[in-house]
Amino acid sequence: MAVDTDTDVGEGGETVTATVVGGSGFTGGELLRLLAGHPNVELAEVTSRSKAGKSVGSVHPPLRGADLRFTEPDDLESVDVLFAATPHGVSMSQIDDFFDVAETVVDLSADFRLETEEQYDEWYDGHDAPEYLEKAEYALPEINRENLAGAELIAGGGCNATATIMGLYPLVEAGIIDGEQQIVVDVKVGSSEGGAGGGEASSHPERSGVVRPYAPTGHRHEAEIEQFLGTSVAFTCHAVDMIRGASATSHVFPSGPVSKGDLWKAYRGCYEDEPFVRMAAGGSGVYRYPEPKAVAGTNYAEVGFELDPSNKRVVVFSAIDNMMKGSAGQAVHAANIALGFEETAGLEFAGLHPVGAP
Amino acid sequence: MAVDTDTDVGEGGETVTATVVGGSGFTGGELLRLLAGHPNVELAEVTSRSKAGKSVGSVHPPLRGADLRFTEPDDLESVDVLFAATPHGVSMSQIDDFFDVAETVVDLSADFRLETEEQYDEWYDGHDAPEYLEKAEYALPEINRENLAGAELIAGGGCNATATIMGLYPLVEAGIIDGEQQIVVDVKVGSSEGGAGGGEASSHPERSGVVRPYAPTGHRHEAEIEQFLGTSVAFTCHAVDMIRGASATSHVFPSGPVSKGDLWKAYRGCYEDEPFVRMAAGGSGVYRYPEPKAVAGTNYAEVGFELDPSNKRVVVFSAIDNMMKGSAGQAVHAANIALGFEETAGLEFAGLHPVGAP
Amino acid sequence: MAVDTDTDVGEGGETVTATVVGGSGFTGGELLRLLAGHPNVELAEVTSRSKAGKSVGSVHPPLRGADLRFTEPDDLESVDVLFAATPHGVSMSQIDDFFDVAETVVDLSADFRLETEEQYDEWYDGHDAPEYLEKAEYALPEINRENLAGAELIAGGGCNATATIMGLYPLVEAGIIDGEQQIVVDVKVGSSEGGAGGGEASSHPERSGVVRPYAPTGHRHEAEIEQFLGTSVAFTCHAVDMIRGASATSHVFPSGPVSKGDLWKAYRGCYEDEPFVRMAAGGSGVYRYPEPKAVAGTNYAEVGFELDPSNKRVVVFSAIDNMMKGSAGQAVHAANIALGFEETAGLEFAGLHPVGAP
Amino acid sequence: MAVDTDTDVGEGGETVTATVVGGSGFTGGELLRLLAGHPNVELAEVTSRSKAGKSVGSVHPPLRGADLRFTEPDDLESVDVLFAATPHGVSMSQIDDFFDVAETVVDLSADFRLETEEQYDEWYDGHDAPEYLEKAEYALPEINRENLAGAELIAGGGCNATATIMGLYPLVEAGIIDGEQQIVVDVKVGSSEGGAGGGEASSHPERSGVVRPYAPTGHRHEAEIEQFLGTSVAFTCHAVDMIRGASATSHVFPSGPVSKGDLWKAYRGCYEDEPFVRMAAGGSGVYRYPEPKAVAGTNYAEVGFELDPSNKRVVVFSAIDNMMKGSAGQAVHAANIALGFEETAGLEFAGLHPVGAP
Repeated sequence: MAVDTDTDVGEGGETVTATVVGGSGFTGGELLRLLAGHPNVELAEVTSRSKAGKSVGSVHPPLRGADLRFTEPDDLESVDVLFAATPHGVSMSQIDDFFDVAETVVDLSADFRLETEEQYDEWYDGHDAPEYLEKAEYALPEINRENLAGAELIAGGGCNATATIMGLYPLVEAGIIDGEQQIVVDVKVGSSEGGAGGGEASSHPERSGVVRPYAPTGHRHEAEIEQFLGTSVAFTCHAVDMIRGASATSHVFPSGPVSKGDLWKAYRGCYEDEPFVRMAAGGSGVYRYPEPKAVAGTNYAEVGFELDPSNKRVVVFSAIDNMMKGSAGQAVHAANIALGFEETAGLEFAGLHPVGAP
Repeated sequence: MAVDTDTDVGEGGETVTATVVGGSGFTGGELLRLLAGHPNVELAEVTSRSKAGKSVGSVHPPLRGADLRFTEPDDLESVDVLFAATPHGVSMSQIDDFFDVAETVVDLSADFRLETEEQYDEWYDGHDAPEYLEKAEYALPEINRENLAGAELIAGGGCNATATIMGLYPLVEAGIIDGEQQIVVDVKVGSSEGGAGGGEASSHPERSGVVRPYAPTGHRHEAEIEQFLGTSVAFTCHAVDMIRGASATSHVFPSGPVSKGDLWKAYRGCYEDEPFVRMAAGGSGVYRYPEPKAVAGTNYAEVGFELDPSNKRVVVFSAIDNMMKGSAGQAVHAANIALGFEETAGLEFAGLHPVGAP
Repeated sequence: MAVDTDTDVGEGGETVTATVVGGSGFTGGELLRLLAGHPNVELAEVTSRSKAGKSVGSVHPPLRGADLRFTEPDDLESVDVLFAATPHGVSMSQIDDFFDVAETVVDLSADFRLETEEQYDEWYDGHDAPEYLEKAEYALPEINRENLAGAELIAGGGCNATATIMGLYPLVEAGIIDGEQQIVVDVKVGSSEGGAGGGEASSHPERSGVVRPYAPTGHRHEAEIEQFLGTSVAFTCHAVDMIRGASATSHVFPSGPVSKGDLWKAYRGCYEDEPFVRMAAGGSGVYRYPEPKAVAGTNYAEVGFELDPSNKRVVVFSAIDNMMKGSAGQAVHAANIALGFEETAGLEFAGLHPVGAP
Repeated sequence: MAVDTDTDVGEGGETVTATVVGGSGFTGGELLRLLAGHPNVELAEVTSRSKAGKSVGSVHPPLRGADLRFTEPDDLESVDVLFAATPHGVSMSQIDDFFDVAETVVDLSADFRLETEEQYDEWYDGHDAPEYLEKAEYALPEINRENLAGAELIAGGGCNATATIMGLYPLVEAGIIDGEQQIVVDVKVGSSEGGAGGGEASSHPERSGVVRPYAPTGHRHEAEIEQFLGTSVAFTCHAVDMIRGASATSHVFPSGPVSKGDLWKAYRGCYEDEPFVRMAAGGSGVYRYPEPKAVAGTNYAEVGFELDPSNKRVVVFSAIDNMMKGSAGQAVHAANIALGFEETAGLEFAGLHPVGAP
């Protein structure tokens, strides 16, 4: 357990204190929103170098009523749990400082997602604190729940990787993906992935209405997907006109015959009892398959599939809100498990209809 | 009190049973979403003639997990409270039936908003049950809270009227609007106002990217606004590219001098203690004035203003989610008061950032 | 030649008369817009059963100034060329009537795209006039220019098929695609593909912000693609939030090693002299790869690619305006060739920046 | 005449050379697009300090085919006409240099729109070259055509001012607006008004789906409107979700009775023969009133109105593409008149349907 045993934290009705480092960005704001409404969390401090002194509500409208100001990140108070929503590279350089003030650290960047220093040498610019890699637990409960209980360092997954893994994991578990096939993953993402601030390409006139190839090859999330699925994927990403959302369409060519029944069995076997997975595979009405707008603002993943007999193909659809299941929501879910809270605490919002994404 | 006195309803922790008549439309879905998460409400029945037999989640994705199916509206069971989300004209013709099965009726249509049969003759096609008009209480707590406690028939306000009234009411209370001035109200609304189903004008290719005058003059909500503000307004409505949202910009020309301090005093006087009003009038950052996207999915109204000395004008901005504060959220808020629950029960969601509307 | 030899049509400065059958839909309107500005075409008649008697400008705003009304389609006058923009199945049943009044027929539906009756039995509901199939020439000049000169029956390509074929054809020509590989094609389309009128799924609230799998497998355009490329493709289509546009991302796994130089050679070899193809493959700035919004309103296809050495993959991007290069523009381009006009006549518009799609 | 008399410029078929100073921004790109397709203009030079050396097509996709690179703005060659698309303040400081190399200067900034130095002191930060103000002619042909012939310095109008003036001018001419009434103008604008580059507020996540008050009072275009209409207006501007477009809704309260016939007479009297004005005032179908998306990409203004008898109000709607009629298109139109070309040369594009704006 990451928190003092002489407090009653972890037994359901107790409260931990929490700090968010890097609270002015989009995922930082999302964390704040979730923690502000979390029954077991008391927000102690929110840091932002660029917005220090300003009220949190002036940056994040949903928090307009909250009596909370950004502070400088240099002198952190001691808390039970520290969430870091800083750019890649920051957490690895400050991880010792983080553990000086908190027993549990939840990092939303890419800094502790991969398992080895070699992976960071290959996909990123190396790693400053490789000794922590072994300690870190990947935040996705659907594939790593048992290791999250009591974890001290939690590493949030990448949003595109999360969408892809949620779609393909049951096929790996069922042996339908066996590492021999070529898998093509085509991901569509919203503009919030680019973060707050923007630049020319993410300005509204240039970004609206796009279907824009971005990271057409060599996306870093390939490493993360391969690490957890045990198979490489040919991954391509497109920016489309939504704000929140990551939608992965995975094209799988099984070695042998696969029926719809096999697929349902595989998916139900993995996800039947999961609190944050909704299946959508055909049926009637407007929403027959997973859609990012159906999960906007929620911690749900929608997962579904279709069989293509003429091409001997399984097409898998998975959709998440990149800022929730793909980042802040996943982090809170994992922290709930680590700290012994109800898994769904603070994450009950089920979404809106109709809604844009945008 | 609308519910049996031998139950303990109204004292905080109790539960009422509720039916939603007309649950397949947008406001019906919104009601279902709110009631499904309401701590004091148990959903008994949801009717829809066109979708009878289908699961509620097949129409409204946020309810995919709920074990709930639409039923035919012809044989309603007895419940504590009945919400009607039917098209204008339906409730007035069935109001006796509604009261046969429920002691409290909350109607979201226009059928009981106006006070007199004459108004319905002028603005609508007359009224089928004028004897109920006197009994009906307008659902907007900010202007009618005291009459809502224990109300048996609650009439939801129009979304555009609600946005306008929320903006102008404090100026009426402060005497800055005195019925002598010409007030211009320019409203921008999202596509959900058109309801589910759509037609050619609301199809995505025709409706996207619009700034489309609609109801340029003679909008029926003028009647409602005049009824509550005691002054006529010159009202014009535009469809713009969002799904949820109604934003009213009201141009007021006070008879005498008005300072910013006067305005702050007027608004704070009315709204300081209101649980669902946020003020935004200048300041720094991106969100300086009310915006529909800052309240999307919530029951909040954002209200703000600016002073235009050179034109001796006060510009008032007010923004709501038309389906929440402008319809289903307002209805639940009013019902909470009528039934003695916490005012904010089921309505705590504070919104998302960033978010589109769309 | 489809037109009288005793007129001077076909020698550059001459004029043909033209009728558009089915002019009130989106592609019909697009045809009208192009033909109204075409230097060699005089519009004789525009039919629409549902809008007969109304001015064309009341349906299609860009034609507000034109003195043109829809007529009933039952009694067509004789013209040089007849364009049919009717739903699938109409042209095949009326093709004899069309040729009674015109020597050249350009059909924008699917009715004459495939080569054999068997294909129509497999992919559609059979064919009413199979004797015309051999006579029909596919409208895509980049792969069929030589057969279009003097063609009497021109069959417009499908928009998604056109986007895909434009992207992959050079790889087929270069032998990089040899019919042995599994090719995955992931297409993103705008809402105008659904046509005017709409239904619930294409209403603005439901269609905005979507990434929605539609025709996830078994799309009819697979037949057309296979017919022209000589290889099957595993095709999946998604609706995204734009009005105009079809973007195909094709994942190709060549049998042997392929360099960027090989790819450039293949694409330049096919498209260097094409008047309506722009290459975009990397480079700097915001627009590095093909994008639908960069070609919105134009007859251009943008084509580009990226090499993925670690997955031995070529990713091909191709983007068109589905209503132009994917339908009406392609039809006019083909008619220009058939009738001996300048290929680019009436199609010079090069697009807007910035622009949404929407 | 602004150009050498020993060339034949001005007699219809001749050609002038032109430079665009500041060609990498949005209005600069729009100018380039128009001039590249203009039958009487040969582009000599396009400057951009930030993009010098890059191909124009790498910034503006519609010009991908053009063999044109940005140059440094420091050493301009002599041309017939120079278009300046630079930020406010640049042209006034370089106007002597401009006239050193060109006999005709068309400035798209605010630098020469107002008539007196006093106005610049009041509304801007003063003026560097007030001696040119008298010489400048406002670019809007509908109100200033006679003075544009042979003009040497043309001052492009502001987009919001243009939209407003186009709507109200006929009422001024007809005496329905007489300077005594309070006029309220509520303008909705697209994101291209913010220019290329963007900042946090104009990033896609923050700018999408907005109805955002901006410049709620004291907008500088009030000065321009008052200058040409002879009456003050109470002006408020909102950012909405489109890229191109400015839509002005003007609320006018005439002193005496006004009929629809009076209004039609006023508008037809002014605009009947105007090549770039379309009237839309009621009627049937989807597009009954002016809409920005109906004129996106074109130089047209759509103008219409509705009468509100119960409030004794005339509501005037006017819509333009802010980058065309509101900037680059208006500039080319005015230059056509100044240089003696066909008024519509290079401006024939009539728009798209359907289309987003976005």
